[in-house]
Amino acid sequence: MTTLTLFSPSGAVAKPVALKRAAKRLGQLGFDVDVDADALSREQRFAGDDATRLAVLHRVADAAPSIALASRGGYGLTRLLDQLDWGRIAHSIEHGTRWVGYSDLTALQNGLVARFKGLSMWAGPLACDDFGRTEAEGGVDEVTRDCFLEAMSGALEAVGFRAPSAEFDGLEARGRLWGGNLTVLCSLLGTRHWPKVKGGILFLEDINEHPYRVERMLLQLQQAGVIDAQAAVLLGDFGGWAKVPNDRGYGLKDAVAALRARTKTPVLTGLPFGHVRTKVCLPVGATVELYVQGREALLGWQSDPRLAHGHDHDHHH
Amino acid sequence: MTTLTLFSPSGAVAKPVALKRAAKRLGQLGFDVDVDADALSREQRFAGDDATRLAVLHRVADAAPSIALASRGGYGLTRLLDQLDWGRIAHSIEHGTRWVGYSDLTALQNGLVARFKGLSMWAGPLACDDFGRTEAEGGVDEVTRDCFLEAMSGALEAVGFRAPSAEFDGLEARGRLWGGNLTVLCSLLGTRHWPKVKGGILFLEDINEHPYRVERMLLQLQQAGVIDAQAAVLLGDFGGWAKVPNDRGYGLKDAVAALRARTKTPVLTGLPFGHVRTKVCLPVGATVELYVQGREALLGWQSDPRLAHGHDHDHHH
Repeated sequence: MTTLTLFSPSGAVAKPVALKRAAKRLGQLGFDVDVDADALSREQRFAGDDATRLAVLHRVADAAPSIALASRGGYGLTRLLDQLDWGRIAHSIEHGTRWVGYSDLTALQNGLVARFKGLSMWAGPLACDDFGRTEAEGGVDEVTRDCFLEAMSGALEAVGFRAPSAEFDGLEARGRLWGGNLTVLCSLLGTRHWPKVKGGILFLEDINEHPYRVERMLLQLQQAGVIDAQAAVLLGDFGGWAKVPNDRGYGLKDAVAALRARTKTPVLTGLPFGHVRTKVCLPVGATVELYVQGREALLGWQSDPRLAHGHDHDHHH
Repeated sequence: MTTLTLFSPSGAVAKPVALKRAAKRLGQLGFDVDVDADALSREQRFAGDDATRLAVLHRVADAAPSIALASRGGYGLTRLLDQLDWGRIAHSIEHGTRWVGYSDLTALQNGLVARFKGLSMWAGPLACDDFGRTEAEGGVDEVTRDCFLEAMSGALEAVGFRAPSAEFDGLEARGRLWGGNLTVLCSLLGTRHWPKVKGGILFLEDINEHPYRVERMLLQLQQAGVIDAQAAVLLGDFGGWAKVPNDRGYGLKDAVAALRARTKTPVLTGLPFGHVRTKVCLPVGATVELYVQGREALLGWQSDPRLAHGHDHDHHH
């Protein structure tokens, strides 16, 4: 049976009922669900104080369930990075644990990439956000759910998406996949938790950040030499911001254009990932291959080597 | 006569009348005011496109007025840092130009610190924000105005402020002053525009950033080794954010406490600087001395060596 532990490494779970609903649904999907003892702990805005959340990460790593799915993001992981026993986290992955989440989890995932060459975690759903919504709130997104199930079974080998134009027709790239939430990723710059990936495939998303702030971060990465050193950049969703009168037409497209004007690295948009209902699962830290034909992009990787049956699943959005 | 040029390196001036009001008031204060030809230019949210604003910076530098006061901040300077002819900027300072502003100007000021040891710019008011308000909008803050006048005359040698407690009683520190807006400063991390100051005095302020975001940036600086390498950190104003229910009491004090718990560097609060009406002028890049007696902090520096009359002015808030 596939064991799945729900744990809270960052912000406090505001609605415990959402976590219970997620646990129930994940049970119905066939997982043997365990809710960590501190999943609903609370200290101010955090899911328990730093010592508590650090102990949670170590406890989950030591138990090495098949899946360690975070309850939610928020803020809290960068508080713990210096104290984390990364060897215990790595050990759990070597024993088969798939760590899953996005947003604040970006810090954990890329801290891992910074330290271990052959290991990966999954950028994918969060329990409350993706499996905890009532039907009135929209329920569970089917694409998100199906992609998660495939990824967790080890069968997922690729995700496909459609770019807004065919300008990258014929592009082929191969490299280590890394990235995630742009703000969280940038908060690692200059620290020892920063992954110095060369020739990688960098994916980025964010929410509630005005395009001028997105642009400032993208240009920071460019000025830091990060963008030019990548084989490709994949932009996911950047939503939740509001136009202001002073923008006078300036928007996300201009932010992307400002980056493109400063680098030869292909910057693709349209990756179905971010703070949106429909999101794919992506193996952060794994070596991936990107193929673009016309507007169709395919991001592929070796499926779990422990799966010997050679399925050829992929997942299209 | 003291020449003063108003120029726009970042965001477009939304209300031209505010710049005209500032020009008039600065004239009444005795300055020979010149408004740069592109001070009211506009390209989307910017005060002209990148080439225009770059040309403005070079033009102002070449003209070398006594004072180059930015109209406003916003966003735009980090777009120009890679293309800027820093030698021309430096040359203007060597010829006596005092560059003044805050917020987005942090990028220019610290890019200078990153390149030139003996040069400084002034963290201080912005024309529209500080000299452009109608009387109904509050007019000109007297402390801000008087401190600006003293700084621009070359007579300002110190600013004093009161800390919330006497915990740093007896502290003495000496080092290069740098910093400014926390978000803008952090957007330089990892780039060649980052000043690698050791043993400095780092001052920080921000607006509209929730304390968890302020904390994330402060911890980034700490994890990057920046905070531990300073002689002292001075925190100015961090306002404009709104509590959310999920904070459960978490606020700015907790963010400061999180930083203090991770460093031995003294972290003082209460510096009268930031996106607030009352702000002092601070020589970014100059060597400064900090003395604390009880709750009273004094930040002092050598007055302009071109002033031979040995005034002993200082400015208390």
